[in-house]
Amino acid sequence: MQESILHSYTNAVIITINKCMDIIKNGYITVNGNKIIDIGTGEPKSGGITIDVGGKIIMPGFVNAHTHMPMTLYRGIADDLPLMEWLEEHIWPAEAKYTTEENVRIGARLGLAEMIKTGTTTFCDMYFFADAVAEETEKAGLRSVMGEGILEFATNSFEHSKAALEKAENFIKKWSGNKLIHPAVIFHATYTCKKNTLIKVKEMAEKYKVPMTTHISETKGEVENVTYEQGKNPVQYLKELKLLNNKLTGAHCVWLTEYDQKDFAKHGTSIAHCPTSNLKLGSGIAPIPDYLKKGINVALGTDGAASNNNLDMVEEMRLAALLHKGNTLNPTVVNAKTAIKMATINGAKALGLDNIIGSLEVGKRADFIIIDTENTFMTPIYDYYSAIVYSMNSSCIETVVVNGKELMVGRELVTLNENLIVEQVKSLKIMQ
Amino acid sequence: MQESILHSYTNAVIITINKCMDIIKNGYITVNGNKIIDIGTGEPKSGGITIDVGGKIIMPGFVNAHTHMPMTLYRGIADDLPLMEWLEEHIWPAEAKYTTEENVRIGARLGLAEMIKTGTTTFCDMYFFADAVAEETEKAGLRSVMGEGILEFATNSFEHSKAALEKAENFIKKWSGNKLIHPAVIFHATYTCKKNTLIKVKEMAEKYKVPMTTHISETKGEVENVTYEQGKNPVQYLKELKLLNNKLTGAHCVWLTEYDQKDFAKHGTSIAHCPTSNLKLGSGIAPIPDYLKKGINVALGTDGAASNNNLDMVEEMRLAALLHKGNTLNPTVVNAKTAIKMATINGAKALGLDNIIGSLEVGKRADFIIIDTENTFMTPIYDYYSAIVYSMNSSCIETVVVNGKELMVGRELVTLNENLIVEQVKSLKIMQ
Repeated sequence: MQESILHSYTNAVIITINKCMDIIKNGYITVNGNKIIDIGTGEPKSGGITIDVGGKIIMPGFVNAHTHMPMTLYRGIADDLPLMEWLEEHIWPAEAKYTTEENVRIGARLGLAEMIKTGTTTFCDMYFFADAVAEETEKAGLRSVMGEGILEFATNSFEHSKAALEKAENFIKKWSGNKLIHPAVIFHATYTCKKNTLIKVKEMAEKYKVPMTTHISETKGEVENVTYEQGKNPVQYLKELKLLNNKLTGAHCVWLTEYDQKDFAKHGTSIAHCPTSNLKLGSGIAPIPDYLKKGINVALGTDGAASNNNLDMVEEMRLAALLHKGNTLNPTVVNAKTAIKMATINGAKALGLDNIIGSLEVGKRADFIIIDTENTFMTPIYDYYSAIVYSMNSSCIETVVVNGKELMVGRELVTLNENLIVEQVKSLKIMQ
Repeated sequence: MQESILHSYTNAVIITINKCMDIIKNGYITVNGNKIIDIGTGEPKSGGITIDVGGKIIMPGFVNAHTHMPMTLYRGIADDLPLMEWLEEHIWPAEAKYTTEENVRIGARLGLAEMIKTGTTTFCDMYFFADAVAEETEKAGLRSVMGEGILEFATNSFEHSKAALEKAENFIKKWSGNKLIHPAVIFHATYTCKKNTLIKVKEMAEKYKVPMTTHISETKGEVENVTYEQGKNPVQYLKELKLLNNKLTGAHCVWLTEYDQKDFAKHGTSIAHCPTSNLKLGSGIAPIPDYLKKGINVALGTDGAASNNNLDMVEEMRLAALLHKGNTLNPTVVNAKTAIKMATINGAKALGLDNIIGSLEVGKRADFIIIDTENTFMTPIYDYYSAIVYSMNSSCIETVVVNGKELMVGRELVTLNENLIVEQVKSLKIMQ
């Protein structure tokens, strides 16, 4: 379906994720350009083309609130290792050798294809060569919040933090106003950025009124080190620098103290919970039920495919719903409805985009997925949230629409050539 | 491919899961009847038909060591509830009303279709109307270890434990020697069977030399109750009754004491670890790394779809590999190689079938799956175990072969009609 044509998807079960969590049976969504202009029951009121989805589910696309997309190239390069050995002996050497702009483009395309196939419509990305990643993302048609990843030491993308800050600022200026690429200030962590860099980060975010994201309290060791160096843990250090505000999303946040949690709630700072990565790297299990009780906005992220090892938000949502029940011996925490909100509207809120995405409502962007229910995985359905969170896998996702444009139809990618991407990645022969 | 024809699958990466964990590149597997008669590199030595799999992966099918397959009918009927409320107010009333022989057949077909689509080739089933389940399983072509589920109180399948024991014994006699259905003594738990019933269970297993399975120490409450009633916890009670032996697999085993663990190791009793179900019902996280260190054979199970809510062993294997790293803050425990063994050969050992399944070796049954690697999920591959455990999802599984017969080819079911099954389940209108 072309972006510009008025059209309606009809005969759908619409999981709106609006404030009332309305589920509309025999529903339709009318799209004009990139916007939802009507949602209702029965026949659409507007003219235009009609697409009967045959009783399938339509829901907002997933918002992946934390990833390092081009690292999909390093999926499985090293596993089952202690964090520092994994980073220092495998990930960083591989990045030093292979993270060129061209390879970042190839890795980005691999990640983009996987995200579309698993129903993600918006992602927040932290990596280098951000211009290249943004160009590939715009071509693929996905929505993204991103910027040049800022840190102190040299990468293949910049020599030092001053150059990183310059690249980051140029990126914001260049992409500001783009329909799909939403610029942000992306800084790596309190332990990889000096105080002066963090101050400049804050100034840049304020100047351009853009969201920020960074890693916060991912491991016990990080909290100990930052506390040793700064006399404050990462959260209190960010608070001192006035970086703990409602523009900031902290990725991971496994080890927040009671004080930290209250400060997150008070300052409206969001969390991008990454349960798979936290398990895989042995970082721990974030006390998410406590965070939710305090009213903190908790979104979901896959982290990069080097520590996941995929970008599948369906799996992430399911794990988020399961993990905390077993960890707290309480099967009522993080119920299916909560998990689906974490994977959609909470992600939109974290990224400052809840005015345009995260739920299916009139006036918002047409970012949604269509889920096939005529298969064994989705049979029977007693409760839609339960079926989507606990039973579904990503192969049930048939169609993906972003900004009014279909990126996948009948599980066939429209904007990307999957075979070509797979061939290109294989031809790199990394580490062989 | 017909069961009786000599044929070879060539040009494959063969993940053998044999003692040396050999991986054979450019490999072939020759099948005659229901057996593997040759495995090697390059061109097959025997004549017969050749199927070039184009570089795809061939590995043993998954062994689901604990499920309640016909309960797939109740997938998602009640979630996010405390265990006893879930059982007493939702599952048991639904079962009393809907668990007829005919519905058990319909639920079984739904579960069988899902298992084939997700690469399971053998499962151990605990439910009622076992004859009906066995007939449906044989028709679908899957391998199963099963029997009539024995417990004290009345079900729709029997009036009391005496009738259950009779049905269980008749099942063993009827199905003994069957190529696909391996009879077993299946008893529910120490808290649902009286001492006299447990003694008869033991005698029956000894008389017919069949494996046994039961729920053991799934929740803290169960351990407390059995200890209160019997003066011993479930493991020590089973030990006293001489049921703790190498014919027994304990499902769940979340709350084993140090003594229990040593007794499992000493007596060769296996564990069917069900991480998803244990998380979902808030039962807890079994200390699997401790069990493995003690040399206990740990297999994997999905449990029933009423507490999972699917039968996908790919997801179960991935969760088993991830969960214990985060829970112990140690990313080196349950590595990819260990997880894949838990999902294959360890399951075969638990069920007493490691002489015929669980690995790809000459003389064993031809039970295997073919995995497509030309897709984004399986790109790139640096390590085969990592790719299968951490990156793959079940949609990558293209072909499933059991006992030499293809049950799925190119993701199309051969022995079952998926559309018909979905329609039949929907037509039941349970709880509507």
